[in-house]
Amino acid sequence: MAKDKVCLAYSGGLDTSCILQWLIEAGYDVVCYMADVGQEEDFEAAKAKALKIGAVACYIEDLRKEFIEELCYPAVQCNAIYENVYLLGTSLARPVIARSQIAVAQKEGCFAVSHGCTGKGNDQVRFELAFYALQPKIKVIAPWRMPEFYERFPGRDALLDYAAATGIPVSSTKSKPWSMDENLAHCSYEAGILEDPDTTPPADMWKLTVDPLKAPDTPEDFTLFFEKGLPVKLITQGKTITGSVELFLEVNAIARRHGVGRIDIVENRFIGLKSRGCYETPGLTCLRSAHIDLEGLVLDREVRALRDQFLTFNYAKVLYNGLYFSPEREFLEQSIVASQKDVNGQVRCRVYKGSFFALGRSSETSKLYDASESSMDEIGDFAPSETGGFITVQAIRLKKYGQAKADAGERL
Amino acid sequence: MAKDKVCLAYSGGLDTSCILQWLIEAGYDVVCYMADVGQEEDFEAAKAKALKIGAVACYIEDLRKEFIEELCYPAVQCNAIYENVYLLGTSLARPVIARSQIAVAQKEGCFAVSHGCTGKGNDQVRFELAFYALQPKIKVIAPWRMPEFYERFPGRDALLDYAAATGIPVSSTKSKPWSMDENLAHCSYEAGILEDPDTTPPADMWKLTVDPLKAPDTPEDFTLFFEKGLPVKLITQGKTITGSVELFLEVNAIARRHGVGRIDIVENRFIGLKSRGCYETPGLTCLRSAHIDLEGLVLDREVRALRDQFLTFNYAKVLYNGLYFSPEREFLEQSIVASQKDVNGQVRCRVYKGSFFALGRSSETSKLYDASESSMDEIGDFAPSETGGFITVQAIRLKKYGQAKADAGERL
Amino acid sequence: MAKDKVCLAYSGGLDTSCILQWLIEAGYDVVCYMADVGQEEDFEAAKAKALKIGAVACYIEDLRKEFIEELCYPAVQCNAIYENVYLLGTSLARPVIARSQIAVAQKEGCFAVSHGCTGKGNDQVRFELAFYALQPKIKVIAPWRMPEFYERFPGRDALLDYAAATGIPVSSTKSKPWSMDENLAHCSYEAGILEDPDTTPPADMWKLTVDPLKAPDTPEDFTLFFEKGLPVKLITQGKTITGSVELFLEVNAIARRHGVGRIDIVENRFIGLKSRGCYETPGLTCLRSAHIDLEGLVLDREVRALRDQFLTFNYAKVLYNGLYFSPEREFLEQSIVASQKDVNGQVRCRVYKGSFFALGRSSETSKLYDASESSMDEIGDFAPSETGGFITVQAIRLKKYGQAKADAGERL
Amino acid sequence: MAKDKVCLAYSGGLDTSCILQWLIEAGYDVVCYMADVGQEEDFEAAKAKALKIGAVACYIEDLRKEFIEELCYPAVQCNAIYENVYLLGTSLARPVIARSQIAVAQKEGCFAVSHGCTGKGNDQVRFELAFYALQPKIKVIAPWRMPEFYERFPGRDALLDYAAATGIPVSSTKSKPWSMDENLAHCSYEAGILEDPDTTPPADMWKLTVDPLKAPDTPEDFTLFFEKGLPVKLITQGKTITGSVELFLEVNAIARRHGVGRIDIVENRFIGLKSRGCYETPGLTCLRSAHIDLEGLVLDREVRALRDQFLTFNYAKVLYNGLYFSPEREFLEQSIVASQKDVNGQVRCRVYKGSFFALGRSSETSKLYDASESSMDEIGDFAPSETGGFITVQAIRLKKYGQAKADAGERL
Repeated sequence: MAKDKVCLAYSGGLDTSCILQWLIEAGYDVVCYMADVGQEEDFEAAKAKALKIGAVACYIEDLRKEFIEELCYPAVQCNAIYENVYLLGTSLARPVIARSQIAVAQKEGCFAVSHGCTGKGNDQVRFELAFYALQPKIKVIAPWRMPEFYERFPGRDALLDYAAATGIPVSSTKSKPWSMDENLAHCSYEAGILEDPDTTPPADMWKLTVDPLKAPDTPEDFTLFFEKGLPVKLITQGKTITGSVELFLEVNAIARRHGVGRIDIVENRFIGLKSRGCYETPGLTCLRSAHIDLEGLVLDREVRALRDQFLTFNYAKVLYNGLYFSPEREFLEQSIVASQKDVNGQVRCRVYKGSFFALGRSSETSKLYDASESSMDEIGDFAPSETGGFITVQAIRLKKYGQAKADAGERL
Repeated sequence: MAKDKVCLAYSGGLDTSCILQWLIEAGYDVVCYMADVGQEEDFEAAKAKALKIGAVACYIEDLRKEFIEELCYPAVQCNAIYENVYLLGTSLARPVIARSQIAVAQKEGCFAVSHGCTGKGNDQVRFELAFYALQPKIKVIAPWRMPEFYERFPGRDALLDYAAATGIPVSSTKSKPWSMDENLAHCSYEAGILEDPDTTPPADMWKLTVDPLKAPDTPEDFTLFFEKGLPVKLITQGKTITGSVELFLEVNAIARRHGVGRIDIVENRFIGLKSRGCYETPGLTCLRSAHIDLEGLVLDREVRALRDQFLTFNYAKVLYNGLYFSPEREFLEQSIVASQKDVNGQVRCRVYKGSFFALGRSSETSKLYDASESSMDEIGDFAPSETGGFITVQAIRLKKYGQAKADAGERL
Repeated sequence: MAKDKVCLAYSGGLDTSCILQWLIEAGYDVVCYMADVGQEEDFEAAKAKALKIGAVACYIEDLRKEFIEELCYPAVQCNAIYENVYLLGTSLARPVIARSQIAVAQKEGCFAVSHGCTGKGNDQVRFELAFYALQPKIKVIAPWRMPEFYERFPGRDALLDYAAATGIPVSSTKSKPWSMDENLAHCSYEAGILEDPDTTPPADMWKLTVDPLKAPDTPEDFTLFFEKGLPVKLITQGKTITGSVELFLEVNAIARRHGVGRIDIVENRFIGLKSRGCYETPGLTCLRSAHIDLEGLVLDREVRALRDQFLTFNYAKVLYNGLYFSPEREFLEQSIVASQKDVNGQVRCRVYKGSFFALGRSSETSKLYDASESSMDEIGDFAPSETGGFITVQAIRLKKYGQAKADAGERL
Repeated sequence: MAKDKVCLAYSGGLDTSCILQWLIEAGYDVVCYMADVGQEEDFEAAKAKALKIGAVACYIEDLRKEFIEELCYPAVQCNAIYENVYLLGTSLARPVIARSQIAVAQKEGCFAVSHGCTGKGNDQVRFELAFYALQPKIKVIAPWRMPEFYERFPGRDALLDYAAATGIPVSSTKSKPWSMDENLAHCSYEAGILEDPDTTPPADMWKLTVDPLKAPDTPEDFTLFFEKGLPVKLITQGKTITGSVELFLEVNAIARRHGVGRIDIVENRFIGLKSRGCYETPGLTCLRSAHIDLEGLVLDREVRALRDQFLTFNYAKVLYNGLYFSPEREFLEQSIVASQKDVNGQVRCRVYKGSFFALGRSSETSKLYDASESSMDEIGDFAPSETGGFITVQAIRLKKYGQAKADAGERL
């Protein structure tokens, strides 16, 4: 009789290799699934390892383009940021990975999906909420939340023993004292020695970006072009780049060599715990900053204010909490598009030793900025004397307030 | 018979000197008023000039302490920022200046106050809304909005001719091709050559901060301490500094020598015009960033979210638009205080070539962060298996969404 | 030489008849403009009067359909309400009137438009902001803001004298001690005796609705159908009604005879004054209430929450303040549409002596409500035991809060 | 050896009587707890029953005053409403009940608390989140979420059999085909026949209020007085009532006899299910409506707008979701108080056949409303001509918008 099939998100590392073995021991056929979202990884070696352990199949899916276009670029469009600091690098990759894993699971006829996320983090939530929206009847096997697993493997040593006992090859590299997650947009570092929020990350931790202290002494300038709020062209050192992935990779490369996009925060996880994370988001930091800069020139004040207070905040929250496949994300995204139709133009950018600067911006389509009208030196289209009436009317309410305070003997 | 008295906000420059002369010619006794909010200025020379032109008195009021404590520090407490970028340096100084000018006007029995603000900017609005709230019956003489003034003096040359004709001393320094506003917290640059938003500001424009490209090759570290969200102590290079003004000045000095706090934006003025401004806000940039960092450690997630979406946004808008003396600012400020009672702790900070970094943070009073509980490696206070129920319940709504989409044949 | 032409919003009443005469005396050719937005009015008599006074033309434009479809129905879609009470009846009509008046002005080659709005109200703002957006170069002649007009005609008697002197026919009806504005959606009453906010409106003031105390002793039931949040069908007493205007008129008729939709408030005008208004909005009250009721059944919780906090509030504010022709209204309206795609279904309604009740609701397309799943008596699709994990995880943050309070000796 | 003690929220009904018996059988000493929040109940009979079944003690705690003052009145202050319709009657009582139950549990040395809430509702969440905040180490026994309980008692018949077998007295009254929750502020009805959202509730279901169709033909008028947004005095039919509970009871009595406060909605539960509820909230409906009315007269526009968008929405959400004992509620409540300091005055009210009307309002302390200034017939304190400047400046942005649209050939 055919065994039940499970589709396991596999990384090639110790944890998911042990989970693979454990699932096989539990009597399942296991299909391994690996997403290529741009992380530096020896996919073929991992695949070989999976098959060696006993996976019935191993898929490697290239999701880079959809990751950039469907997730990273909408995040740029609405300047997404979580708790003032975090650019959501990990959160952005989860929806495309989950969607692709479910597609593989469906193709292979799996009754369940499995993953190696811990039971206290955000990623379990992000993956599983996506799984359940994508296929409401799917079963999820989350070993790190199952007492029979986490009590059997209380730490790394227990996993190493299990690997040794079952013949799972273990790389000789010493485990780093933190955990990482990498994709095209970012690399994250958390846990281990980083759990003390007062410990400064060691200099050799950061993987994607050059240390700002060791970055070039000469700044590097480039120009980004946007249409409807989306990056469409990059001009740098004589080159013109237009494809979404190509553009993203090039901005990333520029930002990486100048040490742009490192952050270190204590954030609030969806489940209510605080945790400390260090993140590198080089290219996205530049794209987001340039987009914000351009909006100053071309976006209406009131649309911007509504977007800032409503869309930016909530889109980031929805993404962070793993609610990408939800009615509210769909709603928010349509609103974002509605806000961006006039965000066309270009920004001249500079990076230097960890910093991003906007050097100038222009737009051929927008006429909202009018140098002569805002000039203090020209009369322009309206008479300055009119402003007196504006102030007088704005003051009606404030005069009453001031008078009431004065009557009450209170100092303003 | 005694002449009517006017209290003029005087700077010693060409514009307000001509206004002073013009008011005297119009038959008023003029009391000149200068606010010391920390700008670099030869106050005594300006006073001598005012009296020479014919002012009946000239006041110089030191407002630095109230500027820092009543305005800058609440702005730090709520991370105030306008349109994602501007730290409100000019806006923050206006309320204390207006309040002090009204006090002088009242003491001197003036029926009106006057200022040299242009008729298209934000400052006229900020000053006058404050004047009207502080003294609802006050009259305001705003020459740059009066056709009899602005038509008579259509440009700088007309003012120079008038100065020459009436014996107003004019400094020999050539006027800069932009206008500036300086105080303890910042220096702004706008108009003139900056009116083209694609023109990069010249390197010699920036006054407060060292060019990041010329900043020291060695970063500088210091530690900031906060109580109830307010900066209370700075430790730097062995020194401990506690007074509000002293602390602010020292952070400013550190940030200035490392080129921190330069920005360049196109913003939306209250009157609906877009304008381009360049700003330096060295110390405030560090204080705000450190405060945000500390909040990650000690502020509850939901209080933070409400504060971000509601208080930060609106406090900045109210300040920018000159509505400091208003019921809404009073209301918002009380809410800010309510949000900050647990924001106690310290942040280790680094500045380097234009960038600010948080190196670590800690709090003796807050227990919200619990390394062992958030650790992926420890079981801690709750069982990871519980999280399954959390996810299942969160998924109830999303499963229905996914099913409805599937039934409708739409792809998620 | 041809005279300059002005297009005057004309009502046939004393004020605009005097303005017409005054504009003619000032040397203009005047084109009169009347909008039919459903108010009870003898349009032809008014037209004859305009021509008799000397208008060069008089247009009567039927705007009822666009008023209902472009303004009233979007207001229903987002449950628009101002300051918790006012359904925006007057504000909703202004955009279509302004647009049509500008079209007439353009057709007739007028250099200016004119109106009879007072200088302290909202309507001047609403009309003129619309005019300026629709035709940025248009001139506006607002006599009640011009000293040469309002000083010459300080009250009704002065207007009556002028009418007598210039041969303007005056109707013999005694002026009511309040002013009114009527359209298909509502009738408003303000000023005069209503200016004392503690004066209860006299029973004979209300024009559209039966006094609830005199309404039928038998309730009346009907069923409203919505598609994408828009009313599309009404079934009442065996009749089925589908056209937008027909449906609106019929709901109006039902609500009017049962005294539904009277309100009495003190509201905050755009210019910062408080004013007292009494309003009847019979049909719109029913449509809005039924729409809210249906949303409970078919709209996702999070979409609803975002819509309530963001779209409902801001759309009402934008409409009230006369900012219909603005980037923010365009943006908000697209977001409203995005929120309403699943709002399909029907509501059984009852009106009775001033009240509206929802008797039941259903939807053929939405499956979000699932009686068996929410039933306390059935196990359904998820195990109640799962909820324990949900609560435990939600409690993580609260336990820390409670412990901190206990440690501090504070009582919860 | 002493048995472990459990404190059970006991109602005297079938469910909690069976739970009591079941807990005793499981080996616990059980302390029964009953909260008097104003529901109609024979507390002494229930106590006797608990003791007869075998409870070691039974507490009856009178929480009416704290329920009104600490929960209902703050809800009035911020006009709390959930999803546009529900006045939160059940949610408001939960915090005081949970706090008192924990106090009893602590006094009796119980290691756990227990309740009879179902596993799909809001109340389990509300009680338990409160328990955990109030005593982070408390254990909760929720039988309806425990398979050993709910699988053993799959329906009412199983409970009846168990009661018969264990000698639990069962009242002869036939169970109603819905479940109810009553307190001073409201009565709720849900489940059973109400689970079909298109079923109109039967006329005999409603317990607190007279059927509007049978309410008196004569309206009843009364006057409510507020200080800092709190109800402080009621004058009705010559009586003056001031105590918080007395006032609340009297308004309740008035509203009940006129059928005010019935609603019927489909709402979104915290756990993500939709459910249908019918609610009667007679007195609170009147207090809330009168409070809203008074705010029109005395509350500043901008404070109101911020409060509406931020505090009203979030306070209701926090209460509904059972997050009363949380940092965010504490924060919100302090902000509410800050918003209400000027909400002083009186409202003349009328109730009639299900409707509430405000007849007039006044305030001795507020001067924000100024009849002469808002009057269209008087010039007052500012010149109407000033408003022209206000409009011109507001139009700056809109003219650019209109021009851009025209240039693009788009119709406004």
